[in-house]
Amino acid sequence: MSSTETQIRQATPPSSPHDSDTALFLRAAWGQDTERAPLWLMRQAGRYLPEYLAIKAKSSFWEMVRTPELAAEVSLQPLRRFPLDAAIIFSDIMTPLPALGIEIAFNPGPVVANPIRTKAQIEALRRPEAEEIAPFLAKAIGLTRAELSARNIPVIGFGGAPLTLATYLIQGSGSKEYEDFRAFLRLEPAATHALLGKLTELSIDYLKLQIEAGARAIQLFDSWAGLHDWATYREFALPYNRAIFQALAGLGVPRIYLAVGASHLYPVIAELPCEVVSVDWRLPLNHIRSHFPNRTLQGNLDPSVLLASPEVITHEAHQVLQAGLGGAHIFNLGHGVIRTTPLEHVAHLAEVVRAFDRRS
Amino acid sequence: MSSTETQIRQATPPSSPHDSDTALFLRAAWGQDTERAPLWLMRQAGRYLPEYLAIKAKSSFWEMVRTPELAAEVSLQPLRRFPLDAAIIFSDIMTPLPALGIEIAFNPGPVVANPIRTKAQIEALRRPEAEEIAPFLAKAIGLTRAELSARNIPVIGFGGAPLTLATYLIQGSGSKEYEDFRAFLRLEPAATHALLGKLTELSIDYLKLQIEAGARAIQLFDSWAGLHDWATYREFALPYNRAIFQALAGLGVPRIYLAVGASHLYPVIAELPCEVVSVDWRLPLNHIRSHFPNRTLQGNLDPSVLLASPEVITHEAHQVLQAGLGGAHIFNLGHGVIRTTPLEHVAHLAEVVRAFDRRS
Repeated sequence: MSSTETQIRQATPPSSPHDSDTALFLRAAWGQDTERAPLWLMRQAGRYLPEYLAIKAKSSFWEMVRTPELAAEVSLQPLRRFPLDAAIIFSDIMTPLPALGIEIAFNPGPVVANPIRTKAQIEALRRPEAEEIAPFLAKAIGLTRAELSARNIPVIGFGGAPLTLATYLIQGSGSKEYEDFRAFLRLEPAATHALLGKLTELSIDYLKLQIEAGARAIQLFDSWAGLHDWATYREFALPYNRAIFQALAGLGVPRIYLAVGASHLYPVIAELPCEVVSVDWRLPLNHIRSHFPNRTLQGNLDPSVLLASPEVITHEAHQVLQAGLGGAHIFNLGHGVIRTTPLEHVAHLAEVVRAFDRRS
Repeated sequence: MSSTETQIRQATPPSSPHDSDTALFLRAAWGQDTERAPLWLMRQAGRYLPEYLAIKAKSSFWEMVRTPELAAEVSLQPLRRFPLDAAIIFSDIMTPLPALGIEIAFNPGPVVANPIRTKAQIEALRRPEAEEIAPFLAKAIGLTRAELSARNIPVIGFGGAPLTLATYLIQGSGSKEYEDFRAFLRLEPAATHALLGKLTELSIDYLKLQIEAGARAIQLFDSWAGLHDWATYREFALPYNRAIFQALAGLGVPRIYLAVGASHLYPVIAELPCEVVSVDWRLPLNHIRSHFPNRTLQGNLDPSVLLASPEVITHEAHQVLQAGLGGAHIFNLGHGVIRTTPLEHVAHLAEVVRAFDRRS
């Protein structure tokens, strides 16, 4: 292993991660070429589940996120239906931002009451104490973990990458191409860096809080990184993502990085110190692996495949599983579960993935 | 030149395209490493222009497209303000679709009254005669050409690629990730192919009509190709795009292919028989050129740069111009002009591009 690779993958993962007692998901995340691919799905706790919709009918999105019992319940729902290998705590990448003094609504996507468009707004953001940021989330992770520990199923914590959080804060809401953000970044690079620095500090505290509460892995969602060119990513994303992952090194949790529509950035993303790279469906895993030697790949079934027939699901899942051979692989979608996904299709996918022997 | 390259680039471009009498845009499109990069901008005839908004205030989008005098006027507006090297006819990729019997509104993006979701709907599409498809467009091209011929500025015709047209027809309206379309394509591949076949026939007639009316180049917009993985693009996009370009071979017009967010597809796109590949801002032109030897590259300034300061515009445009050296280059944006772009920024960009000597 070169010195770069040593930095990128933690030299000493904790407590014998290759033991067969260790959860399959964690073994794969730490780099083991496991006998079968562990499975979880982005947005597995979400609107395609009737039991989720039943809770959502009675509570706002913020109530669900901020009430530990509700967040834990929603996180556990998919694990009761499907034989998944990990839970992800129910929350949102925007969850820590109100602690900075920013008002955010969900409608259903995030809407920032006062989009950040001036240096003064960035300077005015408060620096919260770590324990203020999301105490409800720590409790939700504890409750979820308590219910899953007997089944040896780990809970994944997560946060948004600074560039992606800044994208929403400056644009103000979802958008196809986030032009206002992309313009701000070029007009006010110093202010953008100041914002990204504050978001990085916040994210480090926020993710450490989740690890202390029992999250066994951390995923950093850089959903909008793919909008940018190399130079922009290298200046405005790479150093902040690196700082976050470095701050989480040695804490005993594998670090997962996700970007969507970002295959043009893989050579730069490869510089990030993380164990797992989560990729979308645009390229087959066997074409991606050369960019990330000695890393675990997570992905990358097109979520729209789950709207198709069971036969198509079997075929496409096998393509992903085959392409994932030759290194550690965590099976997932390339992006989140689509709201209209039939439940029985998720069950079918789980069967297909579990039945695929990676050593035969 | 290999036989593949001969097929890909027309062996005998018409009427001495390298003559200094030939318009700069056409010389570059035919592969000449010109003394300066010709300039035009996608959506240069559009909502950032007050004179466009004045017409739009009095006419619906369809009225503007279907009234030759209005379409010509709008096409000419940016050429009166800025020293551009080509006009693009004002229209929309959805323009030929009503001829199939499909009702489309603009609100402001295209909305299909009855999204195509069944085989029966696809079978029921009518096959129009070529002259029925868009007679107004032929007239608009003629009027635009008449005004520009004295200035030796060519008019570009265009259409949507079949996969991108099918994306709208099946999804029904704009969407972030077009999941319903992606699912339909996997559930009903035969029906999707039937639709793509009909759209290809229509597109060939439609684009030939524009050439007969005086369009000097044709751009095929495959705006949503980048959503798909290699295998999907190869099956559902490549053969139809190839058929269209082959049908336009030998007609004396360079063929331009545009996809956005599609850098993962460049090795497949390289198989298309076209002279020019228009690329977005995600990778520098000098990194893209190796995928497309002997082709002209068109692009690729990030349109959000035009919202930034003149200093930033100068810097970023120079980056693009420098990266475009070493082969034929047509300067353009990586996607369309953003509605809030200041007019003086477009004027400034034109100055910067015109002042850049590619031979110094």
